[in-house]
Amino acid sequence: MNPPARTAKQRKQDTIARLENDADTWVSTADSTGGTPYLVPLSYLWDGTTLLMATPAKAPTGRNLRSSGTVRLGIGPTRDVVVIDGTVETLEADALADGVGDAFATRTGFDPRELTAHYQYFRVTPRRVQAWREADEIAGRDLMRGGAWLVAD
Amino acid sequence: MNPPARTAKQRKQDTIARLENDADTWVSTADSTGGTPYLVPLSYLWDGTTLLMATPAKAPTGRNLRSSGTVRLGIGPTRDVVVIDGTVETLEADALADGVGDAFATRTGFDPRELTAHYQYFRVTPRRVQAWREADEIAGRDLMRGGAWLVAD
Repeated sequence: MNPPARTAKQRKQDTIARLENDADTWVSTADSTGGTPYLVPLSYLWDGTTLLMATPAKAPTGRNLRSSGTVRLGIGPTRDVVVIDGTVETLEADALADGVGDAFATRTGFDPRELTAHYQYFRVTPRRVQAWREADEIAGRDLMRGGAWLVAD
Repeated sequence: MNPPARTAKQRKQDTIARLENDADTWVSTADSTGGTPYLVPLSYLWDGTTLLMATPAKAPTGRNLRSSGTVRLGIGPTRDVVVIDGTVETLEADALADGVGDAFATRTGFDPRELTAHYQYFRVTPRRVQAWREADEIAGRDLMRGGAWLVAD
């Protein structure tokens, strides 16, 4: 028997805890010609409002993020998910605010600034956030729409 | 310290074991206009060659799978992944071979044939399969290309 469906408030708390404590997200992007999905896991740094990730500029994910400015993220195991639709800003390493590059390296365990390949950073601002576990939580899964949380803390 | 990178043969064995034993996959699709990714977790049935999944015909994943015939799947935790690019065949419930609908329901715990919403089944034939754990396994991650395994059993 599954536990009862969580309240919106509980889901928001769980979602923020997951964003703070998880290390990786599935990153889903689409190319500009239509119909071709791409998906890889990447590590991220959560700053309370946005997610920062990094990937080679030439990789399919990098190309798609730059051209579309759009991403959909899947975090957590498949029976306890957080799904985020976000807008994407592309940043070169020298555009990061003081300390952010170091915080990213500490959090993710890799420092793109030290690699010879050209990495870019991508800052994801959530516009829509959903969270659900099993089928009984599909209803009420929207926690943020249009960049605004639907429930208070 | 991570264990050493697995051999191609070991990765293939681990990949098939995961396909047989896992219940869910992240399903990444793209719409026909370009640039808009979609991502949801779905349960699947593996028959040794293809993955069968089901989702409402009207859902974004259903629409994208029908229009593009292409999917990218992510299975496993983010530090032990199997990533599959596949082609997609759309099937109505009455087109399933004898026993397949029952096997799907037993495996996934839900039976789309009993629901009032119009579900379709989607059969994914892998064309490219990759498997990796950490950065040291990025090299050699291709296990199947063009629908053919690169290593013998």
